[in-house]
Amino acid sequence: DLSQQGNYFSRETLDRLSGKRTDKVWLEAKQSDPDTVYLLFSNLSPMVSSSQEDGSTGGETKLCRFRYDAVKDLLQKPATVLIFLGVERRKNPSSTTSSSPPTEEGVQEPPAWFAISTDEDAAELLKRCREQNCSFPKTPNRDLLKLNEDEAGVVAQARSVLAWHSRYSFCPTCGSSTKLEEGGYKRSCLNADCRSLQGVHNTCYPRVDPVVIMLVIHPDGNQCLLGRKKIFPAGMFSCLAGFIEPGETVEEAVRREVEEESGVKVGPVQYVSCQPWPMPSNLMIGCLAVAISTDIRVDENEIEEARWFPRQQVIDSLFRGARPAFTIPPRQTIAHQLIRHWIGMNSNL
Amino acid sequence: DLSQQGNYFSRETLDRLSGKRTDKVWLEAKQSDPDTVYLLFSNLSPMVSSSQEDGSTGGETKLCRFRYDAVKDLLQKPATVLIFLGVERRKNPSSTTSSSPPTEEGVQEPPAWFAISTDEDAAELLKRCREQNCSFPKTPNRDLLKLNEDEAGVVAQARSVLAWHSRYSFCPTCGSSTKLEEGGYKRSCLNADCRSLQGVHNTCYPRVDPVVIMLVIHPDGNQCLLGRKKIFPAGMFSCLAGFIEPGETVEEAVRREVEEESGVKVGPVQYVSCQPWPMPSNLMIGCLAVAISTDIRVDENEIEEARWFPRQQVIDSLFRGARPAFTIPPRQTIAHQLIRHWIGMNSNL
Ligand SMILES: Nc1ncnc2c1ncn2[C@@H]1O[C@H](COP(=O)(O)O)[C@@H](O)[C@H]1O
Ligand SMILES: Nc1ncnc2c1ncn2[C@@H]1O[C@H](COP(=O)(O)O)[C@@H](O)[C@H]1O
Ligand SMILES: [Mg+2]
Ligand SMILES: [Mg+2]
Ligand SMILES: [Mg+2]
Ligand SMILES: [Mg+2]
Ligand SMILES: [Mg+2]
Ligand SMILES: [Mg+2]
Ligand SMILES: [Zn+2]
Ligand SMILES: [Zn+2]
Repeated sequence: DLSQQGNYFSRETLDRLSGKRTDKVWLEAKQSDPDTVYLLFSNLSPMVSSSQEDGSTGGETKLCRFRYDAVKDLLQKPATVLIFLGVERRKNPSSTTSSSPPTEEGVQEPPAWFAISTDEDAAELLKRCREQNCSFPKTPNRDLLKLNEDEAGVVAQARSVLAWHSRYSFCPTCGSSTKLEEGGYKRSCLNADCRSLQGVHNTCYPRVDPVVIMLVIHPDGNQCLLGRKKIFPAGMFSCLAGFIEPGETVEEAVRREVEEESGVKVGPVQYVSCQPWPMPSNLMIGCLAVAISTDIRVDENEIEEARWFPRQQVIDSLFRGARPAFTIPPRQTIAHQLIRHWIGMNSNL
Repeated sequence: DLSQQGNYFSRETLDRLSGKRTDKVWLEAKQSDPDTVYLLFSNLSPMVSSSQEDGSTGGETKLCRFRYDAVKDLLQKPATVLIFLGVERRKNPSSTTSSSPPTEEGVQEPPAWFAISTDEDAAELLKRCREQNCSFPKTPNRDLLKLNEDEAGVVAQARSVLAWHSRYSFCPTCGSSTKLEEGGYKRSCLNADCRSLQGVHNTCYPRVDPVVIMLVIHPDGNQCLLGRKKIFPAGMFSCLAGFIEPGETVEEAVRREVEEESGVKVGPVQYVSCQPWPMPSNLMIGCLAVAISTDIRVDENEIEEARWFPRQQVIDSLFRGARPAFTIPPRQTIAHQLIRHWIGMNSNL
């Protein structure tokens, strides 16, 4: 199936209702609403329950959902961080199957979602859940790929914002402490004389790091360039990628990173799709790029090996033919989707 | 002329040579190299000279370039920030017209560029320059659009990195002071126990804020949605725009921002091109978006008015026909380029 679905971490099942972030009364009412859903995070991992008995390998995991009563004690603790994630999107606003009573206007509001991050003991927190095989996954890069598509998007949002709070609790402009505001989407300096309080500054808002990730196509149209880092599992190759720098376009960043990492020069660049990657808060901007040179000279600080792979070998890896020559990252990654996209394309780029 | 040139702020005339940022010996040698070009910044503005006598309105401006001897005293001052911008790209590496002697390998290295930011008195700094009508422009949003295309890209890079240093001199993770490293592309915490020193963290690297900016097309294909903020000059309308949030794709951000700001719902979204916008460090990601609803209800906190404009009115504004019904931003903005792109397109999107 080569049809282009949304990328993993990209499905938005919630309406963020960003306008409500400044409405303290509304937010407080939602916090104690019995329909409200809470996700529990410890050390930037969400509590999940696993279908597998051992909980550690394979299988799907799902988010443990809590009601107000099960978490209200945590909301009182000073180290708790609370993020308003949004309200469920109505699939079909006219026909609702919920049992809750309609609000004053006769329109029933969909449930709100919050993420809670706490530094309470993880083992104690797990006891709060009635599901089987609960855990806070230890290796996000791998474990957060086991969620179903609907839940992955919510985790991307929550984890990125929480990671920002965990790294940015002091004001970068003056070094003072900051306080959390606007449903968890703003931090303001507590030093009344701080420059960051005059005008609008990005220091007060969550950080999103744009990254380019690109499949480089050989000038002959029938090979692509893949590389591997030392930390990759044996035999795995993936797309090259790198952070967009200040003052740079997507297209220039693609050309610069490919040349830095592989020595290959790139001409035309085409945007394909993007993917939030909450490790901790990247936006992966996926492109196809056409090489205008072919000699490879890797930057050994970053890349262990880079090679041109013929289309047929890539197809074998993608569909896990008998004994593929190499492996590619799983379908949840945009690298996988870019490769799939190329394979689905005509070989005359 | 509807041909798609690069966007303003996007021309990369320098090779960033990011691999050299960690090479202190090479960087120091380049600093005192007589071919090296220095740009001088005060309060995040570059020193420019204006072709106009009064220097304040209209006309082109060009960057004042300094040699090592003219700035070496500034390099010694503790408040000075020095950024390595890169080396000039060779147009034609085989035939060189420069008079400098070749290096050991017989290949002559192209000139390096640095940006210097200093808190010395601006009027005193201006005396260092032999050009006419020198100044540090006061309104970057307007004045930085007067550079020629080649110089604009360098300013985008330098200003974004300098703005990061000016706002992020303290470690956001622990509040300690930080020191500048790697040619101005890294800040490291001076507190040896800080978490930010374990592993790789974005707190140490310049921030780039991705923003979506979109031209929304009416379902009939013959009108587009433009809005105005209160601060816009009278009669000016532009594309809607907004920051990409954590855990969000480009396409979702377009849909969310358009609905938040105008009440209009968007279906398909298509990436067109992007533009660095160093106010202070945004990456504007330009898209066309097709509306699936038409009723307008503006968010009055952000937008004063939004309207559907017929194609012919937009053409009149773009080519400044007699008495256009409204104005659009200048050609240096990606908003202008998106509008131009739409006008050049077939009306059946
Ligand atoms: N925002 C950022 N977050 C993490 N690392 C960054 C960032 N910006 C630049 N870097 C540096 O980029 C390296 C990864 O290289 P690349 O992903 O190819 O750009 C990291 O090891 C850091 O040295
Ligand atoms: N990185 C950021 N820099 C500045 N303002 C931000 C940032 N992220 C969110 N904001 C907020 O977004 C508002 C502008 O709205 P918009 O550009 O439509 O997203 C600002 O007034 C801030 O309240
Ligand atoms: Mg890389
Ligand atoms: Mg790299
Ligand atoms: Mg890089
Ligand atoms: Mg906006
Ligand atoms: Mg907005
Ligand atoms: Mg916004
Ligand atoms: Zn502060
Ligand atoms: Zn620190």
